[in-house]
Amino acid sequence: MPTYRHLTIGAIIFPKLDQIDFTGPFEVLSRLPDSTFHVLAKQREPVRDIHGLILTPELAFDEAPPLDVLIVPGGSGLDAFMEDEETLAFIRRQAARATCVFSVCAGALLCGAAGILQGVRATTHWTAFHLLGYFGAIPVDARVVIDGKIVTAAGVTAGIDGALRVAAILRGDEVAQQIQLAIQYAPDPPFHSGSPETAPPKVLEAAKAAAQPITEGRLVIAKRIAQKLGVSVTHR
Amino acid sequence: MPTYRHLTIGAIIFPKLDQIDFTGPFEVLSRLPDSTFHVLAKQREPVRDIHGLILTPELAFDEAPPLDVLIVPGGSGLDAFMEDEETLAFIRRQAARATCVFSVCAGALLCGAAGILQGVRATTHWTAFHLLGYFGAIPVDARVVIDGKIVTAAGVTAGIDGALRVAAILRGDEVAQQIQLAIQYAPDPPFHSGSPETAPPKVLEAAKAAAQPITEGRLVIAKRIAQKLGVSVTHR
Repeated sequence: MPTYRHLTIGAIIFPKLDQIDFTGPFEVLSRLPDSTFHVLAKQREPVRDIHGLILTPELAFDEAPPLDVLIVPGGSGLDAFMEDEETLAFIRRQAARATCVFSVCAGALLCGAAGILQGVRATTHWTAFHLLGYFGAIPVDARVVIDGKIVTAAGVTAGIDGALRVAAILRGDEVAQQIQLAIQYAPDPPFHSGSPETAPPKVLEAAKAAAQPITEGRLVIAKRIAQKLGVSVTHR
Repeated sequence: MPTYRHLTIGAIIFPKLDQIDFTGPFEVLSRLPDSTFHVLAKQREPVRDIHGLILTPELAFDEAPPLDVLIVPGGSGLDAFMEDEETLAFIRRQAARATCVFSVCAGALLCGAAGILQGVRATTHWTAFHLLGYFGAIPVDARVVIDGKIVTAAGVTAGIDGALRVAAILRGDEVAQQIQLAIQYAPDPPFHSGSPETAPPKVLEAAKAAAQPITEGRLVIAKRIAQKLGVSVTHR
């Protein structure tokens, strides 16, 4: 655990993010004692998530203070920023001094595009998992992966599990446990359909088909970025 | 499962709601095929959640269409609306025709205050559980309780489990399973601290102490409402 000090936490939002990639970690980490949570975006204008929810950033990238924790969510809109130099430079600049960079879902791809996952063990949404290698990351099939100061969570709701791990790293287990109790996080999903290994085959096939256009588009982008980063992906 | 038709879903938001009580169900139910999700509030003005997140409603109560599903979240700001006749009348009016009324966390108290939980089995956040009787509800200690068209979820994150149950009721198990896989909801909390039964005693004591001012204030309100509803709570 680092020395106790006020924590400045920031999350990036962008059009067509998947809102709970952001609101899950917000729920947990906005409860950390002695901390400030900033909602950040390229421009200080409201954005809509993939299903239309309006979220409002309060600081533009160039107004953001140095962050102790940088949160990077995913969502289909991410693709538009994977080659956006302003966004990538912001991530690189903040990551260089942060105590923790925490990606959720395909947010790992944005971190990867910024070049901060090279040689780093990482995870992402199951539909994007095969893309991690293009960013020089070492794919680890786990719900949350912690490698040095980089914390990556798998798809969407894994951000809640990841955020509790981040809370424990930053403020200790007892604080994280108090937050878990306050948000009554004793999950009890009605089905065993939350991962490709446990979902019924028919459900998995439908989900893969639904994700295919996004996944194909991301592969094209990932290949370009691999070239830019000088990452060779021989076995794919 | 009711006859297949377009579903109109609406969630109430208000100042100092607990945002994931709303964004959890939004994440699940905004993915239902052939549905529209409305974010509703007393006035069409942005609100801040208990930790400052800005959320923006798109319709005021008096602009809302008849809803098939009404979602009522909780959060400390709820207390200000438990005796607000405009809010209570809106809930009663929508509940009368809805296929499903779905409360999350202390949202059950608001439904209770509207008089729609009388004789209904229900749950809520563990810190508010002892208040359910004041609204004539039958307290059931479960993560999600379904009684006729009333679905109540326990605290905060229980809204995700509840929403998957609602999704299954509205569109069948397979659709709910597809949503669960898309949001990779295979939760893996790092601690067993998500309920008062499993949290370490020290953590539970701290959480109870932190909740006490809110709980005491709500008891006063609940007693007034019990009188208004004509509910006698003899054993408390």
